[in-house]
Amino acid sequence: MSQAKRVINFSAGPATLPLPVLEQIQSEMIVTSDWGMSILEMSHRDPRFVAVLQEAKSRLRRLLALPEDFDILFLQGGSRLQFSMVPLNLAGTSGGPAEYVVSGSWGRHALTEAARLVDARAIWDGRSTNFDRLPAEEAVAPAPEAAYVHFTSNETIQGVQFREMPSWGEARLVCDASSDFLSRPIDFDRIDLLYACAQKNAGPAGVTVVLIRRERWEGVSLDERLPSYLSYAHHASSDSLWNTPPTFGIYVVNLICRWLEEEIGGLAAMARRNAEKAALLYEVLDAFPDRYIGHAVPSARSHMNVTFRLWDEEREAAFLSGAAERGLVGLKGHRSVGGIRASIYNAMSMAGVESLAAWMRTFVGESG
Amino acid sequence: MSQAKRVINFSAGPATLPLPVLEQIQSEMIVTSDWGMSILEMSHRDPRFVAVLQEAKSRLRRLLALPEDFDILFLQGGSRLQFSMVPLNLAGTSGGPAEYVVSGSWGRHALTEAARLVDARAIWDGRSTNFDRLPAEEAVAPAPEAAYVHFTSNETIQGVQFREMPSWGEARLVCDASSDFLSRPIDFDRIDLLYACAQKNAGPAGVTVVLIRRERWEGVSLDERLPSYLSYAHHASSDSLWNTPPTFGIYVVNLICRWLEEEIGGLAAMARRNAEKAALLYEVLDAFPDRYIGHAVPSARSHMNVTFRLWDEEREAAFLSGAAERGLVGLKGHRSVGGIRASIYNAMSMAGVESLAAWMRTFVGESG
Repeated sequence: MSQAKRVINFSAGPATLPLPVLEQIQSEMIVTSDWGMSILEMSHRDPRFVAVLQEAKSRLRRLLALPEDFDILFLQGGSRLQFSMVPLNLAGTSGGPAEYVVSGSWGRHALTEAARLVDARAIWDGRSTNFDRLPAEEAVAPAPEAAYVHFTSNETIQGVQFREMPSWGEARLVCDASSDFLSRPIDFDRIDLLYACAQKNAGPAGVTVVLIRRERWEGVSLDERLPSYLSYAHHASSDSLWNTPPTFGIYVVNLICRWLEEEIGGLAAMARRNAEKAALLYEVLDAFPDRYIGHAVPSARSHMNVTFRLWDEEREAAFLSGAAERGLVGLKGHRSVGGIRASIYNAMSMAGVESLAAWMRTFVGESG
Repeated sequence: MSQAKRVINFSAGPATLPLPVLEQIQSEMIVTSDWGMSILEMSHRDPRFVAVLQEAKSRLRRLLALPEDFDILFLQGGSRLQFSMVPLNLAGTSGGPAEYVVSGSWGRHALTEAARLVDARAIWDGRSTNFDRLPAEEAVAPAPEAAYVHFTSNETIQGVQFREMPSWGEARLVCDASSDFLSRPIDFDRIDLLYACAQKNAGPAGVTVVLIRRERWEGVSLDERLPSYLSYAHHASSDSLWNTPPTFGIYVVNLICRWLEEEIGGLAAMARRNAEKAALLYEVLDAFPDRYIGHAVPSARSHMNVTFRLWDEEREAAFLSGAAERGLVGLKGHRSVGGIRASIYNAMSMAGVESLAAWMRTFVGESG
């Protein structure tokens, strides 16, 4: 019944969640498991909550085939706080600069913050082509002494995505995976730290997952005046229980991981589904290139956020209102770039994407 | 039905929540209001979420009779992050020291963090009497040039509470009200900033409410290298939407404020209920002074956390297991001090407290 009333939500985040996960949260909102209380009411020190946290970590480790020398942290403050924590922890006292590959708005924000705090610089910047593409491999030449090279695996606003983890010489990579985390397998070979706010594919707003290679926090000397909450070492050495963690968010992350493991069949299967969904929409762009102007060049097209403009900007309102009549919402592009953006994260169904593709074709026909 | 299975939860936080609030969350977990989606799935930029945020602010302002020159922020990172943000924003570039009245473990943590970051010092410290009391008014003499005087209105671990907002000369006060926020009216006359993590009386873990007098952030020059998320000015000038806020937590805070306004009748009524609940337990302590040894001296007794030891430490396990048989859980004292702690926040019912009081009397009788 409640399902019938649900819209098809293309919001860029917070974003649509798997219905079975919402149903489980609902069914145990008043009494979770056999606890006699809600997850919202349980102490974070209670062994039953700690078991949920450990289960979430185990599931993440299995899903991602995460190497053993990585720790998994559940933090607060979103990617914005990571923009500060990464340079302060990984570059603050080292000699080398922090280097940034800037392929969109979020990479730009990350660099701006790092440059306030440490020696940081862009080693590639896609602004001159309006962030519609990714660098050719040879265009990125990190300094051998760089503390790390930061990149954004998927740029939510522009809709450009690294299809593979990049390999830039011997660079140690830091990845902002906020908007494609858990959407596909990840090769961790070059990665020292990966972070993701949860509110795209992994859970509700308010919990941020950080995967950090142990040698990047263990025994590392930090600025003595680093605010304590901002130290990865504090969180990693106390298993995310240095302070009260966002317990409900962690519980939802665990349910989503369970859904990925038990219903979807893992991240490779999830990636196939996501590729199929994205292909449906890009096919429409390619079929009507004079009507739908895709933002990203084909080789950089995101499987998470499909961004395009209409041939006539004045048709946008009609496109969006017609979509809304069909239950298709959240399609307006980010206020900084305009146009249309269809965010098709893990929980967006193929049927939802088919509805949008059908409406796009209909709209072209109606527009004559 | 689900209510029948619920235990009586004396956890210090995350803590018991009002059942009507849990029921509403449950009823609209899949489709919130008429949105066609869950609160967990809605963009923080959507006007319907912004309306929830504004409603929460309006309710807080009414409940607290908050002066107009205060801004209300919803942040992440808990009180631990406030321990850093307060000194970095309010004392970082001023000439005067940050002064701390340390009446328990949390005040001690707040001071320790501030002293790492700025010029900070204790001007009263209750450690010598094991944090069982509060300072006499004349024992606290702030420096005229102090940036602020920080105090903890209720110490969760020791169970000591300022019964009134203190008045220490002309000092501008910063209050950590994490564990008694919304439990009673507050006199804001001397206060420049008050913060509270939500997970006691105000909501789930993961959202922190900050009330800040505008002149303490507007036009204040901050350290240029302050991590951006840690700037009150960023959050206040963008109405807590500088980054993605903890949307679900804010939604729950709003429901709890509505419960306080519409079911309880405001904070004065809530304070009366809380005083009655606390009195029931302290009566038992006073009736059996050789069996139950209260931690706090009577004048400093908390209405939120009632802390005591048994006459014989070896009886504790029996006391706790007998309590659990009666559905009374979460009574073990904090690992740093031991003993028994009954946290009786707003959502703890009088019936729940009566059950505990009855068990305490029974246990004395059974113990002969």
